[in-house]
Amino acid sequence: MALPRVLICGDIVWAHEETQELLGSISKVIRMDSPDRADFLNGLKPGGKYEGIVGIYRHNTSADRLGIFDAKIIDALSGSVKWIAHNGAGYDQIDIAACKSKGIIVSNTPGAVDDATATTGLYLLISTLRQFSKAERNLRSGSWKSGLAPAHDPSTKTLAILGLGGIGFRMAEMAHALGMRILYHSRHERRDVPSWCEYFSVEKLDEMFALTDVLSVHIPLKKETEGAVGEKQIRALKKGAIIVNTARGKVIDEHAMIRALEDGHLSAVGLDVYPNEPEVNPRLLEFPQVTLLPHMGTETEESQRKMEVRALTNLRDYLTTGSGKDIVPELQSKSRL
Amino acid sequence: MALPRVLICGDIVWAHEETQELLGSISKVIRMDSPDRADFLNGLKPGGKYEGIVGIYRHNTSADRLGIFDAKIIDALSGSVKWIAHNGAGYDQIDIAACKSKGIIVSNTPGAVDDATATTGLYLLISTLRQFSKAERNLRSGSWKSGLAPAHDPSTKTLAILGLGGIGFRMAEMAHALGMRILYHSRHERRDVPSWCEYFSVEKLDEMFALTDVLSVHIPLKKETEGAVGEKQIRALKKGAIIVNTARGKVIDEHAMIRALEDGHLSAVGLDVYPNEPEVNPRLLEFPQVTLLPHMGTETEESQRKMEVRALTNLRDYLTTGSGKDIVPELQSKSRL
Repeated sequence: MALPRVLICGDIVWAHEETQELLGSISKVIRMDSPDRADFLNGLKPGGKYEGIVGIYRHNTSADRLGIFDAKIIDALSGSVKWIAHNGAGYDQIDIAACKSKGIIVSNTPGAVDDATATTGLYLLISTLRQFSKAERNLRSGSWKSGLAPAHDPSTKTLAILGLGGIGFRMAEMAHALGMRILYHSRHERRDVPSWCEYFSVEKLDEMFALTDVLSVHIPLKKETEGAVGEKQIRALKKGAIIVNTARGKVIDEHAMIRALEDGHLSAVGLDVYPNEPEVNPRLLEFPQVTLLPHMGTETEESQRKMEVRALTNLRDYLTTGSGKDIVPELQSKSRL
Repeated sequence: MALPRVLICGDIVWAHEETQELLGSISKVIRMDSPDRADFLNGLKPGGKYEGIVGIYRHNTSADRLGIFDAKIIDALSGSVKWIAHNGAGYDQIDIAACKSKGIIVSNTPGAVDDATATTGLYLLISTLRQFSKAERNLRSGSWKSGLAPAHDPSTKTLAILGLGGIGFRMAEMAHALGMRILYHSRHERRDVPSWCEYFSVEKLDEMFALTDVLSVHIPLKKETEGAVGEKQIRALKKGAIIVNTARGKVIDEHAMIRALEDGHLSAVGLDVYPNEPEVNPRLLEFPQVTLLPHMGTETEESQRKMEVRALTNLRDYLTTGSGKDIVPELQSKSRL
């Protein structure tokens, strides 16, 4: 019997040996080599080069050539495809509803990126509170400290985490070690976190915002969360507050955020993500007090290898057992929830 | 009886009310207003405007006009001066030996700057390991992620602290929360720190350096510590190591450090301090992977206020009790050690 065919769709940078170890003996590994979406869609047709694939490893880098896995791509997948093992914590580039109606399971790589992304959030928090990014530009332009105002110690400030999942909680732990007070809002209060994590339900959100010096955003991008941090939420923050975003750009209403920077309601923002990456709103570059990273949240050798291995392992598990770990919440059967 | 005269020598930026509260009713507060050293030395003479002062509050900003408190200035102080309350953790700008021989006590402000300086060290550590400062310059020059290589998760790396005093230990706590392994060397093993702080005696320094991914320097500048991190120590570090310095520039042999950056033995450095501030060796600006701050370690409103109040309180204590806290180690009587 021929081995099941699996498709590697997007980059594997570090885990070459692991790909061979995990999939080499149990499957026929095919690399996606389509230069564009049309070629890819053709390849999926009967007789096409990707015919008969049962599982897909997917990385966002495939979007450069194929675009996102929208309903059009999902619908074009043959009925043989049962599992998409996405490499990444966020899976907003895959149409989950379309997968659901075709019976395709999607897994992601939660946990693997917690450390790396939380560290990025902590960096943006320190940089904005202490005005370090501005200070370095000052030094590099030859003006040393002149024009810099003393900024603020994290240890005297309050951090609010919007979305206390793996990344949010890891960032809370790090900021707690810096001496910050930690507040959080999630859909549900978490019983498995220390008592220094102070929960605010949706009814008490305004109360939380009024206490917030730094708001760090850790909610996934979905239709319901687009613009979740908008005019109303931003204005509810303490005057002079800072927003840090390592989640997804579209979760924040960028125009409302820029207006608040303009009128000083926000004293700074620290961003790793933007609504239309790699585009960055040029207006953001004009505020000297902001820190802007080019979506570096998981850009470490160690985390990327971990994510690749995690996604490949999920695919391997599906091939060997018929199911696997890290199924995205929307596709988990009730018994799993 | 006239109130004792005290001299405020250098900036008080935040603690104006506290100056009045602490010193107003028990002393006559004189502000140093000399435009230069000659005028200052004149003022100290019998009949001069600073005659009869018994204590001095000193901040490094006074060096702009007076230069440092070297032997010449200390010798010129009249015998009435018994206490110099220095605002700062490092007191390398005061000739302690000259003070000792004149029976003048010097206090500093340890502890008050621990959080702020340790946070600066942590920022430099994250920025260099993750290559964030370079990444931000990339974004701001319009090239997004191109040319950036994935960097490293702190959680997979080992930090060595050189000098586990208040600042070093605080930074150790923060880095421990990021998941780092923590090694340290101090003159003595500290019994009051958690077991995850692994001690290396002077005989085992090379062993520590060989395990080190990031070396963070927290030793005071004295004659004996100038160039303490030199060619030999740098070459003993693991290849690709990073050095972070928030202490004093002269503690590191800058030329040896730059050579190691040039030949790749060091992968990066994160510096807040330089040998001849505000001068920065222009060679440092040419390495894209380094993070350079203009001596921002204690530049926060909260820490500066805390330091000012601490120094003023030490002066007040001397005036009211004849002694005070935070006497620098070299001037502590044996019974205090």
